Amino acid sequence: MIRFERVAVIGVGLIGGSFALALKAAKLCGHVVGIGRSAANLQLAKERGIIDSIAAQAPDADLVLVATPVAQFPAVLAALAPQLKPSAIVMDAGSTKRDVVAAARAALGTQISQFVPAHPIAGAERSGAAAASADLFRGKRVVLAPLPENAAASLAAVEAAWTACGARVTRMSAEEHDAVFAAVSHLPHLLAYALVHEFAGRGNSAQLFGYAAGGFRDFTRIASSHPEMWRDICVANREPLLAELDRYAAKLRALRPLLERGDGAALEKLFAEARAARERWLSSEVE
Amino acid sequence: MIRFERVAVIGVGLIGGSFALALKAAKLCGHVVGIGRSAANLQLAKERGIIDSIAAQAPDADLVLVATPVAQFPAVLAALAPQLKPSAIVMDAGSTKRDVVAAARAALGTQISQFVPAHPIAGAERSGAAAASADLFRGKRVVLAPLPENAAASLAAVEAAWTACGARVTRMSAEEHDAVFAAVSHLPHLLAYALVHEFAGRGNSAQLFGYAAGGFRDFTRIASSHPEMWRDICVANREPLLAELDRYAAKLRALRPLLERGDGAALEKLFAEARAARERWLSSEVE
Repeated sequence: MIRFERVAVIGVGLIGGSFALALKAAKLCGHVVGIGRSAANLQLAKERGIIDSIAAQAPDADLVLVATPVAQFPAVLAALAPQLKPSAIVMDAGSTKRDVVAAARAALGTQISQFVPAHPIAGAERSGAAAASADLFRGKRVVLAPLPENAAASLAAVEAAWTACGARVTRMSAEEHDAVFAAVSHLPHLLAYALVHEFAGRGNSAQLFGYAAGGFRDFTRIASSHPEMWRDICVANREPLLAELDRYAAKLRALRPLLERGDGAALEKLFAEARAARERWLSSEVE
Repeated sequence: MIRFERVAVIGVGLIGGSFALALKAAKLCGHVVGIGRSAANLQLAKERGIIDSIAAQAPDADLVLVATPVAQFPAVLAALAPQLKPSAIVMDAGSTKRDVVAAARAALGTQISQFVPAHPIAGAERSGAAAASADLFRGKRVVLAPLPENAAASLAAVEAAWTACGARVTRMSAEEHDAVFAAVSHLPHLLAYALVHEFAGRGNSAQLFGYAAGGFRDFTRIASSHPEMWRDICVANREPLLAELDRYAAKLRALRPLLERGDGAALEKLFAEARAARERWLSSEVE
């Protein structure tokens, strides 16, 4: 069984903190060091038993999880590179992968084989160490986007760690990852933010929100997500996201004439097909 | 205190059935007659105590709730007109109001003063008498769209009935109602159906749905809504809905260049403003 004696978590938020708690619950780690921007958040993480100590760096770490916003990766990885043990594994938890791989290659150079790109699919609007939970990854997917340089043993160790956290681990390329998540995650966030922003900017916004109900609340739940994190995701993954935005705009343009001519049969067919697809999806979910 | 000795519910689904249960719980009604297309559904409604009897018509009703899909209103109201007591109040529960008022005027003629347009804001993906609940309207809004011909006493009686069901009753014109709900309800449904349909039609749809997570599930929850009902709503309210669709498409076009040039500051500002607006809305909700 794998075990990481010293783990460093850079960015002890929802994801980083939950990973530390889950590793501890699985008894897969020894000492956990927390590194981050907010002293108050690190203090809370220590009080909650998420981390065992607070540090500015962790040169003796066997496993480093970089769980900061993606835009900070270049600086974080550059600071990490000179102090990394040759046997250490560095892993990220970023929502995009091509930019993370590029940042890792730039910062780590010949140490790139030590870097395993990972994306746990467990976002939530809540953030910070206060929201961390040992069960966050239970039943959730974690995508690994292996590099050609990665040792099989490193990939196996990372996979074992996430599996011990209760996650279902799969692998795909960084390019495929970014295209898939532009569609099923990044686009819906953009659409939800846009809808809320549209209504908030109108003269009758108080009336509009006054009559918004449960459907609107669920549709826009992801518009309560962390603006800085989603800024970084959108900027990092903008080419695939632009492609998805354009396809969606084309879909709406194709739908518009059905509405304009009042083509009830065509609208009902589209709605029924969408509902059936969604129901198939829900019934296939193992969670 | 108002009391309706004989109530007829035409369309004993989620809304009609819940209204009957709530009126009974408030002890505001005597006998409830159920009228509908599906014998099995009516039988279930009787077994659940939602209705007391099943009939093809209810000429002695003091209060008639028309809770069928909106597209059936012309036929339902035409059948209702010749058998309506002069003292009876007819109320609908449709999600659109201009078309309902037009159908009521055409079918009821000089009896139009007896018709009170109403819209309880309590949709759900579940449907049928099986889903009905006495608590469905508790804390929810009901919009009345009074006609100039309505007697003040009729409006007061309807308002009292809905208030007894636990609802918060407000009034606005049919035109204003349809514009508001095109924005906060009909458009999000259309957008959610479109997104699911878009992904369902792709060659890699299994992969896409395989990585869709909680954000996607909530965003698309309303795409599991009843296709026939939403067909009728979209067709009936297509002018305001087209206007909203066009404004949303324009919003996406305005957002696109921010993404294209990677303008993180502008994106973050938009996301933060949307999140703040949504949080203000949630904190102002009394539910």
